Amino acid sequence: MIESDCLFCKIITKHISAQIVYEDDHVLAFLDINPSSPGHTMVIPKTHAPNLLALPEAEVGPFFAAVQHVGKMLSKALAPDGITIGINQGRASGQEVDHLHVHLMPRWHGDGGHAVQSVVHNPPKEGLDDILKKIVG
Amino acid sequence: MIESDCLFCKIITKHISAQIVYEDDHVLAFLDINPSSPGHTMVIPKTHAPNLLALPEAEVGPFFAAVQHVGKMLSKALAPDGITIGINQGRASGQEVDHLHVHLMPRWHGDGGHAVQSVVHNPPKEGLDDILKKIVG
Repeated sequence: MIESDCLFCKIITKHISAQIVYEDDHVLAFLDINPSSPGHTMVIPKTHAPNLLALPEAEVGPFFAAVQHVGKMLSKALAPDGITIGINQGRASGQEVDHLHVHLMPRWHGDGGHAVQSVVHNPPKEGLDDILKKIVG
Repeated sequence: MIESDCLFCKIITKHISAQIVYEDDHVLAFLDINPSSPGHTMVIPKTHAPNLLALPEAEVGPFFAAVQHVGKMLSKALAPDGITIGINQGRASGQEVDHLHVHLMPRWHGDGGHAVQSVVHNPPKEGLDDILKKIVG
């Protein structure tokens, strides 16, 4: 369940301290040490999984129930105008710690930020129907 | 369940066509018509909910199980080096359609994109402990 050389597992086992926002049997949430915005929180599963695709299916429901709960906590406490919720899956997307983490970044009108779609501009050369064929066969 | 004036509900009821990647009782996934990257897919719940915080708790598990499943489909079909997974919650975060949708944007090394944390640079003026106090009391 716990990987001894994983930074986030060390936060779960309390060998590394963090500002803990929420904790239950499945999940830990803590403030990002390099916040992109006030209240920037990360939610992680207590089961070590390197990324979302590797999270055991039985953990997916409880994990995202907690993500929703933490979103409600941030919303109530900080009254942001919105929240960007995002996951970097894999190095090519910017993932740095190989333990699944969901970023919740409270957003305010006029904060100068963008939508999640802005993280990459790599429009496909093929049409949508051709791409669909590759995916669904 | 369905809002008659909601664009995404019209895709669910098939009054508007889309390139459908995946469908089950709870969820529909289709290609984004303005793709940020090849295979850019949106996953939506069939229950109309304006955003993640408003999604009924009982729907959260099945919804994200499908998000994980669609991530695996994209991974297998397109062999990307990563995936950016993101939700814009509220206008201030860039949400344009008020029906919860998760973006899955396949990523490749050298695609020029960034991590999800890059969507906003609004570092807090307060320290983390002060922010934590606001959230957990």
